[in-house]
Amino acid sequence: MKLGVCYYPEQWDEALWADDARRMKEMGISTVRIAEFAWGLMEPRPGEYDWAWLDRAIEVLTAQGLEIVMCTPTGAPPHWLSKQHPDIHAIDQDGHVKQFGSRRHYDFSSDAFFEASRKIVTAIAQRYGRHPAVVAWQTDNEYGCHGTITSFSPDALRRFRQWLAERYGHSIDKLNAAWGHAFWSMQYASFEDIGFPVHTAAPPNPSHQLAWKRFGSDEVIRYNRLHVDILREHSPGVPVLHNFMAFMGDFEHHEVGRDLDIASWDNYPLGFLDTMKFFEDEDRQRYRRCGHPDVSAFHHDLYRGVVASRRWWVMEQQPGPVNWAPWNALPQPGMVRAWTWEAFAHGAELVSYFRWRQAPVAQEQMHAGLHTPDDVLSPGGEEAMVVARELASMPAEATRPAEVALVVDYASNWATEILPNSPDFEIHALQLAWYGALRKLGLNVDIVPQSADLSGYALVVAPTIALPSAAFVESLKATRAQVLLGPRCGAKSDEIRIPEGLPPGPLRALLPGLRVVSVEGLRPGVALAADGALLGASITRWRELLDAPAGLAVEARYADGAPALVKHGHVRYLAGWLTGMGLEALISTVAQEAGLAVGKPLPEGLRLRRRGDIQFAVHYGTSPVQVPAPAGTQFLLGGPVLETAGVAAWKV
Amino acid sequence: MKLGVCYYPEQWDEALWADDARRMKEMGISTVRIAEFAWGLMEPRPGEYDWAWLDRAIEVLTAQGLEIVMCTPTGAPPHWLSKQHPDIHAIDQDGHVKQFGSRRHYDFSSDAFFEASRKIVTAIAQRYGRHPAVVAWQTDNEYGCHGTITSFSPDALRRFRQWLAERYGHSIDKLNAAWGHAFWSMQYASFEDIGFPVHTAAPPNPSHQLAWKRFGSDEVIRYNRLHVDILREHSPGVPVLHNFMAFMGDFEHHEVGRDLDIASWDNYPLGFLDTMKFFEDEDRQRYRRCGHPDVSAFHHDLYRGVVASRRWWVMEQQPGPVNWAPWNALPQPGMVRAWTWEAFAHGAELVSYFRWRQAPVAQEQMHAGLHTPDDVLSPGGEEAMVVARELASMPAEATRPAEVALVVDYASNWATEILPNSPDFEIHALQLAWYGALRKLGLNVDIVPQSADLSGYALVVAPTIALPSAAFVESLKATRAQVLLGPRCGAKSDEIRIPEGLPPGPLRALLPGLRVVSVEGLRPGVALAADGALLGASITRWRELLDAPAGLAVEARYADGAPALVKHGHVRYLAGWLTGMGLEALISTVAQEAGLAVGKPLPEGLRLRRRGDIQFAVHYGTSPVQVPAPAGTQFLLGGPVLETAGVAAWKV
Amino acid sequence: MKLGVCYYPEQWDEALWADDARRMKEMGISTVRIAEFAWGLMEPRPGEYDWAWLDRAIEVLTAQGLEIVMCTPTGAPPHWLSKQHPDIHAIDQDGHVKQFGSRRHYDFSSDAFFEASRKIVTAIAQRYGRHPAVVAWQTDNEYGCHGTITSFSPDALRRFRQWLAERYGHSIDKLNAAWGHAFWSMQYASFEDIGFPVHTAAPPNPSHQLAWKRFGSDEVIRYNRLHVDILREHSPGVPVLHNFMAFMGDFEHHEVGRDLDIASWDNYPLGFLDTMKFFEDEDRQRYRRCGHPDVSAFHHDLYRGVVASRRWWVMEQQPGPVNWAPWNALPQPGMVRAWTWEAFAHGAELVSYFRWRQAPVAQEQMHAGLHTPDDVLSPGGEEAMVVARELASMPAEATRPAEVALVVDYASNWATEILPNSPDFEIHALQLAWYGALRKLGLNVDIVPQSADLSGYALVVAPTIALPSAAFVESLKATRAQVLLGPRCGAKSDEIRIPEGLPPGPLRALLPGLRVVSVEGLRPGVALAADGALLGASITRWRELLDAPAGLAVEARYADGAPALVKHGHVRYLAGWLTGMGLEALISTVAQEAGLAVGKPLPEGLRLRRRGDIQFAVHYGTSPVQVPAPAGTQFLLGGPVLETAGVAAWKV
Repeated sequence: MKLGVCYYPEQWDEALWADDARRMKEMGISTVRIAEFAWGLMEPRPGEYDWAWLDRAIEVLTAQGLEIVMCTPTGAPPHWLSKQHPDIHAIDQDGHVKQFGSRRHYDFSSDAFFEASRKIVTAIAQRYGRHPAVVAWQTDNEYGCHGTITSFSPDALRRFRQWLAERYGHSIDKLNAAWGHAFWSMQYASFEDIGFPVHTAAPPNPSHQLAWKRFGSDEVIRYNRLHVDILREHSPGVPVLHNFMAFMGDFEHHEVGRDLDIASWDNYPLGFLDTMKFFEDEDRQRYRRCGHPDVSAFHHDLYRGVVASRRWWVMEQQPGPVNWAPWNALPQPGMVRAWTWEAFAHGAELVSYFRWRQAPVAQEQMHAGLHTPDDVLSPGGEEAMVVARELASMPAEATRPAEVALVVDYASNWATEILPNSPDFEIHALQLAWYGALRKLGLNVDIVPQSADLSGYALVVAPTIALPSAAFVESLKATRAQVLLGPRCGAKSDEIRIPEGLPPGPLRALLPGLRVVSVEGLRPGVALAADGALLGASITRWRELLDAPAGLAVEARYADGAPALVKHGHVRYLAGWLTGMGLEALISTVAQEAGLAVGKPLPEGLRLRRRGDIQFAVHYGTSPVQVPAPAGTQFLLGGPVLETAGVAAWKV
Repeated sequence: MKLGVCYYPEQWDEALWADDARRMKEMGISTVRIAEFAWGLMEPRPGEYDWAWLDRAIEVLTAQGLEIVMCTPTGAPPHWLSKQHPDIHAIDQDGHVKQFGSRRHYDFSSDAFFEASRKIVTAIAQRYGRHPAVVAWQTDNEYGCHGTITSFSPDALRRFRQWLAERYGHSIDKLNAAWGHAFWSMQYASFEDIGFPVHTAAPPNPSHQLAWKRFGSDEVIRYNRLHVDILREHSPGVPVLHNFMAFMGDFEHHEVGRDLDIASWDNYPLGFLDTMKFFEDEDRQRYRRCGHPDVSAFHHDLYRGVVASRRWWVMEQQPGPVNWAPWNALPQPGMVRAWTWEAFAHGAELVSYFRWRQAPVAQEQMHAGLHTPDDVLSPGGEEAMVVARELASMPAEATRPAEVALVVDYASNWATEILPNSPDFEIHALQLAWYGALRKLGLNVDIVPQSADLSGYALVVAPTIALPSAAFVESLKATRAQVLLGPRCGAKSDEIRIPEGLPPGPLRALLPGLRVVSVEGLRPGVALAADGALLGASITRWRELLDAPAGLAVEARYADGAPALVKHGHVRYLAGWLTGMGLEALISTVAQEAGLAVGKPLPEGLRLRRRGDIQFAVHYGTSPVQVPAPAGTQFLLGGPVLETAGVAAWKV
Repeated sequence: MKLGVCYYPEQWDEALWADDARRMKEMGISTVRIAEFAWGLMEPRPGEYDWAWLDRAIEVLTAQGLEIVMCTPTGAPPHWLSKQHPDIHAIDQDGHVKQFGSRRHYDFSSDAFFEASRKIVTAIAQRYGRHPAVVAWQTDNEYGCHGTITSFSPDALRRFRQWLAERYGHSIDKLNAAWGHAFWSMQYASFEDIGFPVHTAAPPNPSHQLAWKRFGSDEVIRYNRLHVDILREHSPGVPVLHNFMAFMGDFEHHEVGRDLDIASWDNYPLGFLDTMKFFEDEDRQRYRRCGHPDVSAFHHDLYRGVVASRRWWVMEQQPGPVNWAPWNALPQPGMVRAWTWEAFAHGAELVSYFRWRQAPVAQEQMHAGLHTPDDVLSPGGEEAMVVARELASMPAEATRPAEVALVVDYASNWATEILPNSPDFEIHALQLAWYGALRKLGLNVDIVPQSADLSGYALVVAPTIALPSAAFVESLKATRAQVLLGPRCGAKSDEIRIPEGLPPGPLRALLPGLRVVSVEGLRPGVALAADGALLGASITRWRELLDAPAGLAVEARYADGAPALVKHGHVRYLAGWLTGMGLEALISTVAQEAGLAVGKPLPEGLRLRRRGDIQFAVHYGTSPVQVPAPAGTQFLLGGPVLETAGVAAWKV
């Protein structure tokens, strides 16, 4: 459990560096991430490298014993590259070139950019790959940020066609058949006929859209692998990571994770709450200065599962107001500390604050740092110092697997988004609601892909997996866990067709004879009641019309008699959108069947997380709450009652 | 009164065809529409026709005695045509080419597409024009769907300029004068100077905009006539129809109708309610699973008037949830049957369900059919079977003219939309409100163009006709009907100018001396009261300031003393937006003056329609209602009390 | 105090001119503005001038003794110029050329347009520059209307680069440093590398954006100066003015004003209320037919300060409903008169109605005039006649300086809009709220730029000035007025960076040691209470976290203890968004300290304004109110009680 900081020596007068480094060390920071956007200074002119300033910066930092996380600086390509190769620029779907003048203007499919990246990554890897202070490499920065996965460029089109040709064994007939092109005379004669799935009069074919999403994801994987391969060669043994972002699901994070040693992500709780459209207004108001109590935790639990080693960091931690959301609230006093401890509770090895000092210039000048631009410790900086002191007396604990697995799948999300059938079927809202219900019951959760080994869990939940893989079906069959499947599980085949025998398709192996005959979006204001196991619950947004043969137990029915919840063996299928207390009650029932000890839900805003033998509690709520520690507990942090932004920890 | 179905043999394994045909026949279907989007299979490569599969499909269907409606397949041009002639693609106003990959990407003004259409229509007409089973031809599919009337292409510009030259007698001075180009130095020196009326800094000239709308409409008429002329030549005596859509008023339906033998339209009640922005939220909730009680009926009454023969069909009938609206509700059980009977009540000869079986692939995979993708009868399919059985014992009755005429005019709608003067003057909402008020009073309505013979009606209403034709003014003079004119009648001249002597322009012949001095949009929340004949009514959205000379009777005044309703002889003019109970009261008064027996409005959701001597009742409401049948009535369908989705019929 | 009218002889049959002129004179109009959009008729073909019609029009008008305001007709370039020089057309940021067919399609940066303007302005100035009836020249029309300041054309890019080179002394390093290009490797090697600040993946650099705004403003200044220089040469001694618009702040009005002799503006109170998004719904409803009580007055007080002479006119006055807003309400009877008198109360020399007669054709056919299209006096025309009669007996009074200065700054507005940090920090709303609070207290206000001499005022308020100039700081130091500074004063340096030592930057000279450590947007629904001088007030939308050293008096604190209002000497700084009664109370306190006699706020909707020794009162409110005139007052207009739209005037 260590603290880090993001530092940009190139943005400051060199005269400040030594004092900065000294104060980092003093305040308990061990690790400094540098060089993230400094391509323009590393290579001011094509092929002319200037490492002197960076050598000096590293020297100043390491002189204080600080460890270095070095970055490949490709997130901000310099202007001379745009001039040499205008085709490195991504193009949006309306044909507008993403212009130079901010960052992330590059096209993942550009050959020229691929080669330019190879050169700069090789150069920096050769220069610093064996430097003893470099403890990790970060590839690029926040893939997908600013909606930058796809490009509608000639390079992208060429590569998309190649990708399709490979996917369909170079047979255009196979593609035509898979995509159902007899439907509207959409047959192609050649892969060269295929365009981007945009600007059609009626919607483009969903199969075409899904292929385009997959291609975009594969381009990221390929591009990240370029970095990784070079770094492995020139910096053997040094872990490679990428800093993922929250709610940027345009590529397969688990696939990128296969090539990494450590996962990391950038945790901006107030920015997320302010920006993401799916939050309820009530939550936005209530958690305005704390962040949503499940969002950071969800991503901690997600990214812990993204690399095989289960090692993970918070690469960037919000230290005060951000600049990029609409209202940019001030964090509640104490909350920077609480977010930091929450990350450690979920198993983070390192929490690194973004950034050392607020920049007085350019796009992010209103983004707080640990220091104000006039170099005074900010309120967030003060809290980071508190954490550093508290860490000193905290025993080290390894993480342990959680008792619950929540299954997510990127391609399933894309399939559901491509054919939403309701503007309100918001996947993140559904996943967060299920995750939140588990957490309100005090359960520890692993968020896992379909390919995960599910044998060790007591409870497996899948809020929605449109495209269940054969392996996932096998895992579900094999597990002794209780399984709860949400709506639209198995709704589509891999090519985004209605599966054989109707949904839930291959999941029918677990629910014999079940047919989802029809589905219905419920407009705002419509709420359906149910009976049985869902008595008192309110189904909104989505319902399904099930044909459930006699072999399935119907545990709840809608008022019109149609099944709302069916069960077979250890597997349940829920035919509607359920959140709130109704969902908590259902999950509580299933968890108890799974042998998990769950009591009544935690008070509003309180969340628990266990790391090894230490039980952590973090409080996002507005009223003081009692933590569920036995009487007489010796607290490592906090005490039996937590105010807003309070943190408690005790040994169990 | 027959049932039909839309069938796409090309989308299914040929092994299924025979069984499909057998089951169609068994369930009471008489007519099958085919070949609608099959150009790519009819002509897989340029000039190479493959009729074998279609011959076989027709053989299988006719072997069961099914009748065929054959389609010209131009709604889905194949990819090879795009390759040969990229200029067949329409271009949107921002310059984006409508891409291949769905349907309706063609440009009505493209010479290349016109010639390609001539070839494929000739080929299919020659092949099947004299086939004895072909009982009708459908041209293309849903002109205007997906906003596809206009194209901003070089071909369109060239043809628009020609069209303008012809309209203005090849005199640019005449155009400059008609459009008032002295206003902002907008004079052109030549027709070649004229562009599209978009992307100007201030709004483009309304005359320019109206000309563009008229040109777009004329292009559709020309294109449809191409089909009709070829079909008449190669398929003599076989009726030609087009399947119009609801609320797609970008071309003159009555003008297209002049070239057709039968009108038909595609009836998707839940899709319309879900999609059209002008419905009130309350109606959207209440009728979520039934559709709005006046929308299907309105279009039945509209399309009955679109061809001279007054023959009309429902070419596509919603059989379950659609896929193209936001929420896509499940139809209320019974509603598929009710919609079918409602069409027959209004005079339909045929109701044809879209589609036989839900496709498991491509864009419409979530659109229900009479069968689910795994070939089980769907809930809608069950109801279609009920209708088929009921039809067997229903006596045939010819339709009869209605007692009320409601006048609509496409060009008037365009003029009002081009200069709305209020975002809330929504023409469809106004027309539906007036139509609904008539229907709640139990009246039968014909929806007619300005050119209609109005002599047979007791009551003529015109919710709003901005551009009254001379013939219309004469018809109104001549009729012995009571006439009620709504706001903005006569508001503009044919070139979208303020008419001589102010509005109502030529309608002043009926209302001597009336001047609409000024108009005012009333923002949401503003409601004006009136007295006299409008006592208790609430004028919202729109009011007019009338100068009414002494010769006009003022039947109601606004609170500020300005006239709200004036009358002269048999003609009234209403100077505001009126809906709901106030409108029903006014229309009731006028109808009684017209000698029509109207009682108090029908209960919520109940609608009546007479076909010959049979009185039908359909119930869209949520509470059970009594139908207005005399005691002791022998019911042909239903009984004295109807639940939601109930249908009753009895002889009068 | 004279009346004028806008007249377009070219839009009417010449047979009407003489009678129009006669009636103008008869109704008390002295001044006629002509030729505004008549380029196409003055120069029907390139280089061929036709002055005959205009000569005749002038002759007809002057025969009645009417004075002429002549316009340079560049707001509506003719089509032949587009054909000769397609590059005169502006291009929007998406690359769409602003098409011919309305007005204002020109590009301020186009060399071809600059030369074409030189020719036509020279031609008209030579023709009429010494005509004795020409009493003033108007340059172009409403710079900035329809969002037309910027163009993304090659000409604009070339000139922007030149402008930047000059600004940064032809040193690209200086620009790179000023804009902080080390931040994201954004360094340029040459001024030729710089593009437009749009279509970047992440936001463009705020320094880049601010430079772009300044450049756009400078292009307007340059273009207007072209007109002025030519007019001065050929029409010596005749004043030159421009008709500014309300709420169109995309260029520095005070800079344009430096080149003018008279300021004028176009006053459309109902259009503004209907169109501007920042008004509260409650105000929109309440003042639907009167306009907002502070908006016209604000602009009167603003434009009075825009030229050195302080001479100003209302060049266009709304005479009835406009056509360009969403709902376009009818003015409350009496309001056209009231708006006219209000302008005179604030010091206008002339109020000129737009327009003589409503045009029955083209874009503005629904815009009222003093006459309807059928040439009958409109309701607004009747009221103009009332004013003319009243003017005859009104004593002439010079204006006098106001007791309060409210400081505005265009570049500061741009800086705040570029980095808003909250969607609700709406500068116009803030300025209007402060202005309205002063006016509700009965105070007379001058709206002045930072460069104004502040020595004569008792009270100086600055709702928000992000970029305080050195001169402004000096003026504030020097003044003996009480000073109230609002939030974000001094928030940025001139290059839109955080200033040295944090905000309020150079204003710290007045508030020693003050540091704005952090800021926070408060989302709708959040309201913060404060104590002390702000007890009872409610801070919404925005708060700041101040570090206030002991030397500053803290006059109010937020509930969390942070300072909300600090004072030092005669200067206060308010660290939040305050409106309504809380703001009135604060300003009342400060005004009293300044020695101004302020009582309790005026009744809703009543506003006072003094011109010389005459006190005017205008009533926008819905209930009758008593004006604050001493008992026994002899009224020049109205009386002691005013109804809605009432006007009173009396000598003090």
